[in-house]
Amino acid sequence: MSRFWSPSVHALEPYVPGEQPRVADLLKLNTNESPYGPSPRVLDAIRAATDDTLRLYPDPTALTLRQSIAKAYGVDVPEVFVGNGSDEVLAHVFAALLRHDAPLLFPDVTYSFYPVYCRLFGITYEAIPLTERFEVDLAAYDRPCGAIILANPNAPTGIALPRASIRALLDRHPDCPVVIDEAYVDFGAESAVPLVRDYPNLLVIHTLSKSRALAGLRVGYAIGQAPLIEGLTRVKDSFNSYPLDRLALVGAQAAIEDEAWLRDTADKVVAARGQLDQGLARLGFDVLPSTANFVFARHPDRNAAELARALREHAIIVRHFSAERIRDWLRISVGTEAQCARLLDTLGTLLTRNA
Amino acid sequence: MSRFWSPSVHALEPYVPGEQPRVADLLKLNTNESPYGPSPRVLDAIRAATDDTLRLYPDPTALTLRQSIAKAYGVDVPEVFVGNGSDEVLAHVFAALLRHDAPLLFPDVTYSFYPVYCRLFGITYEAIPLTERFEVDLAAYDRPCGAIILANPNAPTGIALPRASIRALLDRHPDCPVVIDEAYVDFGAESAVPLVRDYPNLLVIHTLSKSRALAGLRVGYAIGQAPLIEGLTRVKDSFNSYPLDRLALVGAQAAIEDEAWLRDTADKVVAARGQLDQGLARLGFDVLPSTANFVFARHPDRNAAELARALREHAIIVRHFSAERIRDWLRISVGTEAQCARLLDTLGTLLTRNA
Repeated sequence: MSRFWSPSVHALEPYVPGEQPRVADLLKLNTNESPYGPSPRVLDAIRAATDDTLRLYPDPTALTLRQSIAKAYGVDVPEVFVGNGSDEVLAHVFAALLRHDAPLLFPDVTYSFYPVYCRLFGITYEAIPLTERFEVDLAAYDRPCGAIILANPNAPTGIALPRASIRALLDRHPDCPVVIDEAYVDFGAESAVPLVRDYPNLLVIHTLSKSRALAGLRVGYAIGQAPLIEGLTRVKDSFNSYPLDRLALVGAQAAIEDEAWLRDTADKVVAARGQLDQGLARLGFDVLPSTANFVFARHPDRNAAELARALREHAIIVRHFSAERIRDWLRISVGTEAQCARLLDTLGTLLTRNA
Repeated sequence: MSRFWSPSVHALEPYVPGEQPRVADLLKLNTNESPYGPSPRVLDAIRAATDDTLRLYPDPTALTLRQSIAKAYGVDVPEVFVGNGSDEVLAHVFAALLRHDAPLLFPDVTYSFYPVYCRLFGITYEAIPLTERFEVDLAAYDRPCGAIILANPNAPTGIALPRASIRALLDRHPDCPVVIDEAYVDFGAESAVPLVRDYPNLLVIHTLSKSRALAGLRVGYAIGQAPLIEGLTRVKDSFNSYPLDRLALVGAQAAIEDEAWLRDTADKVVAARGQLDQGLARLGFDVLPSTANFVFARHPDRNAAELARALREHAIIVRHFSAERIRDWLRISVGTEAQCARLLDTLGTLLTRNA
């Protein structure tokens, strides 16, 4: 605390990111990173750009990267916004599109940054309860609101709504912005991007941190009709006029352009997820149906926090949340098949030993 | 304009960054970039980090980089904050430290982002006039205020206050945050960093975009006592928990650690600035005494905007501002000696031809 702080700072509860421990040979299944390195084309592009041109400012409009994204998704360049990871894109979205007189709606169990941004930007919100099985209950969103944001697939549950449900939600809320945060969409869910042309109030957010294996590069983007993107750009330009560095720009472009690499690695993650699902079920876990690169699972007889601690003693880290509704659950990132097998073996030992 | 925007967005006037034109052989003297590429150690460090670890999130605390900065400046690690360029650091500073009931004070002629941030974060401010010769009049800051921010050297004037003046300002304002934005300090001005240990209300901001020749990498930092840094960290963590990417972290660290390269290139810029000063004076320009990597100059007989347009026709870009008090002036970045000579030759031709 300091008397020199702006008064609003005292009320901020900082987000606590997943651990990034500096221990060798640790199996990190706690932050939903890709178990595979990025496309070799990404590494080549970054190395090629590592030269004296770093003395020059990056293109503040990120035009070349946005052209690649527009081409990949069949939209126009003015329909694409980029930022330093989807977290920064989200922050600009909250400031630019989600602050209205009526409350913002989002699920009671979802990405923990949403209420943080609401406090940061002074946005009133209502947390709409998920069903008992952690599904989004769209009928519950039929209430007065200023805007809606849904993670789809949702986190940390991994459960996705089909595109038809997103369309139905948009049809019921034509007068307010609807933001779909698709950080995990590439692992089997349906993207809402094809709906952008029909709905001027739809914004879809993606990240390169998960399916593109570039958490270390900090790039995310949003796709929506041009007026929504212009609102984001106004806020971005007011905050930080040069958001993406030169290396992130070229690396992200190469990642977007390597669609074959994306499909190949996403398929491997989906296959490993199936193996993990079945293995956890065999060990007695209740596993939610995930279309993300993580699973959300609960063991009926075990305390989740204790299980996480025991795994940690075996050099495996998974994510446990202390929020009341989900404190019995563990979020486990999908690794390679070998990593999933190691986790299952260790869990098997732990469950037998302490049975 | 869009009905889906948050109401506050309609009032935002976006910052217009200096042009980044895509024309070959252009002499860019408009954005104060270094005429030299960065330290070779920076390029080596980035290439070495361009590997599969990009799949992993960066260290959210940027510990290794902050250790290097702390060591370079003789402060402790909790006294160092890093961000995506000093623009982002500034944005967090405005939110965390400069929003109080009483107005923020800064010069009427200074970095154009300051009033933009005030509007973005809802901060009341008073612009204190510089003297007729564009110097900061410290006596004018003896008025009720919530905080003070000064660019030192100031931009776009290039004029610096000595450290003793900053100390005097701090002595007169012990109860409010005083932020010194030292983007251009390495070209001959006195840094306020040695005052940090004596003043709990002092925060000093640096960038790697100018003297470290890394505008393309987007790294800035702030140095102040730990409680101030903690306030910044709270806001940063609420906004974007992973701010610096892995390549920026290692590149910035190598830049900070190559003090010999910094001194060598800064000396070359200072020598070229002397040549530019004298050449402009010989051509009849009124040149302010700069300690930055740019000069601010006015020709008594020429319209500055027209002169900038004429230079552009000769493939040389300088910066002209349309604000009333400085519309007769040009801000010219200091290039290599050869680049300064080319500018002076071209100006000489223009002034003769249209005499």
